[in-house]
Formats: sequence, C-alpha cells, structure tokens
Amino acid sequence: MHSNEQSIEGRNAVMEAFRSGKTIDRLFVQEGLKDGPVMSILREAAKQETIVTRVSKDRLDEMSESGHHQGVIARAAAFSYASVEDILENARKKGEDPFIFLLDDIEDPHNLGAIIRTANLAGAHGVIIPKRRAAGLTASAVRASAGAVHYTPVAKVTNLSRTIDDLKKEGLWFVCADMDGQVMYDVSLTGPVGLVVGNEGGGVSRLVREHCDLTASIPMNGDIDSLNASVAAGVLAFEIVRQRKYK
Amino acid sequence: MHSNEQSIEGRNAVMEAFRSGKTIDRLFVQEGLKDGPVMSILREAAKQETIVTRVSKDRLDEMSESGHHQGVIARAAAFSYASVEDILENARKKGEDPFIFLLDDIEDPHNLGAIIRTANLAGAHGVIIPKRRAAGLTASAVRASAGAVHYTPVAKVTNLSRTIDDLKKEGLWFVCADMDGQVMYDVSLTGPVGLVVGNEGGGVSRLVREHCDLTASIPMNGDIDSLNASVAAGVLAFEIVRQRKYK
Repeated sequence: MHSNEQSIEGRNAVMEAFRSGKTIDRLFVQEGLKDGPVMSILREAAKQETIVTRVSKDRLDEMSESGHHQGVIARAAAFSYASVEDILENARKKGEDPFIFLLDDIEDPHNLGAIIRTANLAGAHGVIIPKRRAAGLTASAVRASAGAVHYTPVAKVTNLSRTIDDLKKEGLWFVCADMDGQVMYDVSLTGPVGLVVGNEGGGVSRLVREHCDLTASIPMNGDIDSLNASVAAGVLAFEIVRQRKYK
Repeated sequence: MHSNEQSIEGRNAVMEAFRSGKTIDRLFVQEGLKDGPVMSILREAAKQETIVTRVSKDRLDEMSESGHHQGVIARAAAFSYASVEDILENARKKGEDPFIFLLDDIEDPHNLGAIIRTANLAGAHGVIIPKRRAAGLTASAVRASAGAVHYTPVAKVTNLSRTIDDLKKEGLWFVCADMDGQVMYDVSLTGPVGLVVGNEGGGVSRLVREHCDLTASIPMNGDIDSLNASVAAGVLAFEIVRQRKYK
C-alpha cells in the first residue's frame, strides 16, 4: 500500500465508501463470513461489479493498516475515472478525430501508468480499461503515468467488446495489436481510431479481437516472443501519430 | 536480493570472485575498515572500476544472507557481460550493418530489461551500458528482458564517449534521443548506427550528446514532459527498423 492508494477498512467505512459512489477497485472479505452487514456489502459490490476476493483472516490482518478490519478491506482508486463520453468530448473540444487507447487486461500497474503516459504524449484523447481482472488506477499506476492521469481521461467499462460496438456507432474504427496481423507500416491507421492493446501474457483476447476492424503487427526481427506491453503500445501509437501527421 | 542475483560475502570469497574475473556490480565495505585484506580487496575493486560504497556495520548485517560478511559484501551480475567486439562480430556474422543501443545511465533495472528486450526484437546486435551509476544486469533486469539477454549481447564500458569515438572508427554513426532534436521522421536513420538513449530523469548527458552525429526527437503532442525511457527507446528503435526495412 502506498500513501495515495486508499485502503478502507471495517464494515461501516466500506459500506459508506460504496454508498458515496467511490470507485472501489477491489474488495477483500474474510473467508466464511456471511452475516448481515457483510452480505449487504457484498450486494453493493455486486451492483458496482467490484472484484471480490475471499482471503483468510491471517492475510487480512497482514493487509490491514488500522488493525480493525472486521473482516472487510476495500481498495479504492487513487484517482477518479472518467466516462467514455468524457473522452469523446475531449476529442470534440480539440476539433480532432477521436484517438482512443483500449487496454484488454493490462495486469501490471507500471505498464498501465506507462501506457497512459504514452497516450498523453501521442495526443490520444483517452484510455479505456475493463473493470474485471485488469489493473486499475492505483497509486503505482498513477505514479508511473508521470502526471498524465491529470490530463488524459481514463474510463473503466464493464465490457470492452460492447464499448467497441458503441464507439463504432460514433464513427470510430478499431485496430487490434496482434503478432499475426499485417505489418503496421502497410495498413492505413488514420481517421477516428481505437487502438486495442492486449495484456502481458496472451495479447488481445479472441472475443475483443473479433470486434476489431483489422489487426496490425509490429515487425519482429529477434529471437524472443514479444515486446513489453507498454513498449508495444508506444510503438503502435507513434505509428498512428506518424500516419496522421507526418505521412 | 533475488535468487539469481549473486551476493558474495566475506573477505576470501570476495577476493576470489575478483580474481576469477567475475563481474562485480557493486562492493559494500564497512565504514572505517582499513586492514590489509580489506585494502587488497579495495585495490582489486579499483582495478576493475567496481563501484564501492561504504556502509555501516548495521546495514551490512541487514544485507547479509550468510551472517558472515566480515565487513565486505559484493553483488555480482546475474548474467555475464559481452564485449563491444562481440557485438560487432554479431553484426558481421549476420552480414548486417551494425545497429547498437547505447544507454546513458538507465537507472531502473526494469527499464534496462525492457530495452534489451526491445533491442532483440528490433534486430539490434547488442546493447552497451556504462559501468558507473547505471543499472547492471541484475536479476530484475534479466527477468524484465524476457529471455533477450540470452540472445542479445550486453557490454559494459568505462566511458561511453570514448566507446562512441572508437565505434566511429568502425564506421558507425550515432543518433542521440533528445527532445530538442529534429523530428525522427525527418532524419535518415539508416546505415551502421548507434542509438543513444538517456536516463529516466535528465536524458542523454551533455558530454555524450556532443559525441553524437545528430539528435532526433519523438514528436510530442501532449501535456507532460517525456515518455517512459523504455517506451522512448522502443519508439525510436522501430523508426530505425522502418527506415531500414520498410521505407
């Protein structure tokens, strides 16, 4: 835990945080607990699609900063999320074709932060991440973004495929980073575009990939499998920048 | 300390490690110690330009894994270094113009590892890092390289400027990553080339920059200062790839 990543401990505090609309990234609940107050908290968590993890009492004791967790600890985002509409509005205000990053399950907060930093400097209008599994805007991610979270809106959505379909109606098309795609120099990456980047291990998931309009690859000239996820996102993003502004 | 980063403790063990030619990244010596064996170790360290840090006995006790440090602990690279000649030979064997990364004081081992990974996949023939200050091939760096250190030689040199001058005699020219440089799309990045990337905070140092033939920049379209060092290295490296192979 770092100073600006919030740990909320104890039943009342956690319930209050949910009710105030605070974005809770994760909820840890002691194994076996099923009493009334805990069940109410679990219902709130389900409503807001918070990831719930059951852990042992020992583990909770270890995680606890206050020593008074009463079986529940919530981790809140160190920064607040924007909406997809905020991102589109950001492009409109600048009078530019939307350019959005969509991250399919980036797990490492350092990578998430570095990608938000890249999105800012590539002139993208926002970053969309999924609610489940992926790393959220924790203190580590905020720190790794080097201030970019103050400028580049980050939205969290329930279903990345559905968001892609919604954005297609707004005129965007989607390019998916994939090793089996066409070499990025050979595809046209201009217009209102969403760049979909997959996670550290498996790349973009099949379902999300099927919602993309085309796949583009970074040409690989080496011996190992793949670039670091934030490096790959950077290389693709600046190929988009090149084609938009310098071709 | 991680499992494949080696800690060598005690006077005989450290002296033996130096004599066997092992690359010692750092030497920690207890404050105030000046007896014969310690002075011999310090002479070896000076000969091999190992970074020496004087620390308190308490700190050494804390660092020690064996509990028997006798006032000296050495940290050895988790992987062995190549020579600059090995890198040139690697290019010759492949029948390619040399393409080498030179890192001016990258401090974060994760960035170092990610850059070696990028160097491998961009088809570079090797990576050169300076002895002083910079991160070495520690276990974290090796892990972050995702196996690339097994294929891409990494050499450690005393003086980066001098190495640049030596390599110029071999026909290489040098491009320095710098925000004030010409936009990378507008400069020709072909031929036998060394890509010089600066550190996380200050970029390439003035002295090293003065030894480069030109400076190139990544076009910045955002609000914050700079990309993550490994992302910047990746974007520049693949612009070199594009110009070499796809232009």
